Amino acid sequence: MILTVTLNTALDITYRVPSLRPHTSHRVSEVTERPGGKGVNVARVLAALGHRVTVTGFAGGATGREVHERLTATPGIADALVPVTGTTRRTVAVVDERTGDTTQLNEPGPHITPAEWSAFQDVYADLLPTVSAVALCGSLPPGVPVGAYAGLVRAARAANVPVLLDTAGEALRRGIAARPDLIKPNADELAELTGAHEPLRAAQDARRRGARAVVASLGADGLLAYTSEGLWRATPPAPVRGNPTGAGDSAVAGLLSGLVEQLPWPDRLARAVALSTATVLAPAAGEFDRAAYEDVLARVAVTGEVTAA
Amino acid sequence: MILTVTLNTALDITYRVPSLRPHTSHRVSEVTERPGGKGVNVARVLAALGHRVTVTGFAGGATGREVHERLTATPGIADALVPVTGTTRRTVAVVDERTGDTTQLNEPGPHITPAEWSAFQDVYADLLPTVSAVALCGSLPPGVPVGAYAGLVRAARAANVPVLLDTAGEALRRGIAARPDLIKPNADELAELTGAHEPLRAAQDARRRGARAVVASLGADGLLAYTSEGLWRATPPAPVRGNPTGAGDSAVAGLLSGLVEQLPWPDRLARAVALSTATVLAPAAGEFDRAAYEDVLARVAVTGEVTAA
Repeated sequence: MILTVTLNTALDITYRVPSLRPHTSHRVSEVTERPGGKGVNVARVLAALGHRVTVTGFAGGATGREVHERLTATPGIADALVPVTGTTRRTVAVVDERTGDTTQLNEPGPHITPAEWSAFQDVYADLLPTVSAVALCGSLPPGVPVGAYAGLVRAARAANVPVLLDTAGEALRRGIAARPDLIKPNADELAELTGAHEPLRAAQDARRRGARAVVASLGADGLLAYTSEGLWRATPPAPVRGNPTGAGDSAVAGLLSGLVEQLPWPDRLARAVALSTATVLAPAAGEFDRAAYEDVLARVAVTGEVTAA
Repeated sequence: MILTVTLNTALDITYRVPSLRPHTSHRVSEVTERPGGKGVNVARVLAALGHRVTVTGFAGGATGREVHERLTATPGIADALVPVTGTTRRTVAVVDERTGDTTQLNEPGPHITPAEWSAFQDVYADLLPTVSAVALCGSLPPGVPVGAYAGLVRAARAANVPVLLDTAGEALRRGIAARPDLIKPNADELAELTGAHEPLRAAQDARRRGARAVVASLGADGLLAYTSEGLWRATPPAPVRGNPTGAGDSAVAGLLSGLVEQLPWPDRLARAVALSTATVLAPAAGEFDRAAYEDVLARVAVTGEVTAA
């Protein structure tokens, strides 16, 4: 069992409109809804890869009920979301059918009370002994202390559970000091953390700040991994066009499943790049195209050097 | 008790964003939600004027539950919405705080089954003997026959209940033939119905098609009423700037309350114009500013001629 934590879950709504024109009225031609937030997306990909996953975090209000109902209906996923009195946020992605471009509207998350945060920590502590790895994903809703991830990383390490941290800004800065096993920032997040704009230098700096391994996502250039075992680059076979929403979450699912399956680093990275590419290629945002995944997986280029033991 | 019918109810969501820029991502700074659809808006204004109102139509799914819960919490409004298996639509209004302009995204309504349409007609028939007037408002969701309003108008007339019809297109064309007591088209709807672009000529034509009285809304120019008792124009004291969302529904509430209170036509029209103007002036879409209402009410100009008895 793998655990993913999404403190700021969402109901992700996608609207397709023939053409988005500001300050006019639009009939939405197609509405799709699914539970969202980074850790929920990671869980869905892990389940599709055949792993059993437990999802925790917060859910409340009418949108929280919808997130619960839809998660419960997803095979392979167990719902351990903690109820809150606030309302789970919605995100609305408006896809312009003419250009294919997306306009995103993200509601603020609900305010989490100290009692709710405390209840979550109890649930998390109870789940840790039952899982083989944990991913801490996404932003913190209002009310959750900015040092939240540091505490959750420490608890995982104390329980001897490998922990991946995928967040940004101050939450990442604080969380990394607690020595997570892996962080997966993109180039911007890594530069914001370290002040260094050259990815290799920034990854080195992030390791000095506490991350045991750093996998930086470089967009179309793939992944750069800097770990105690070596340094690798994994590159997709060719640039692809599509919707990058959820590509980073698919990469996290690839890394986490590879860790649990004890794959060598190059295989983990190839899987992460292939899943990420197959997510960009899928017609629905955040889904991945399985045929594309298998095709790309065989053709990801991984180059690197292994650190002398 | 007044009855309002909203076959295509909605959960109206308003997002405020600092500036709407297509193909970028936005943090929504403020989210408001309320039950919507024209008849629901009319009911809210009637309740604010001190009338007791029953709301019927359809509601389903998670958004339908929210509409139910919020209506039930509104003083003066009784909820008689008929449950359906489909999901009540959302409308999303994105207000650009920089310009004040609104971009509207309207989901399609749920598909109504023949059994659900039949269940609604039973509820409607049971309610008619208990009410002093009925307003039939807005568009028809998929599955409801296009001649629906004609049947509902005939049922009201058979029960001796005055009936106002506020819809557009083919639903209006069919409904008007059943001889509603009053229609309240805007200039575009009236032109579409009659082919005449001059409002007085178009109103005359609409009466020939079956409407006993026609009150045409002419936007900032106020209302034009063409009835068996006379012809009037009601004009607001000065042009106003603001959000016109719901102004037409407020006018319907003014006309309907005036009818039930047996006010003379000039008083009904003054009330409708004042409510409509006070809705444009209110900060929240679809609310009305009570002080502005009372101020404007005293200053609406009503001119006209009474038909010789």
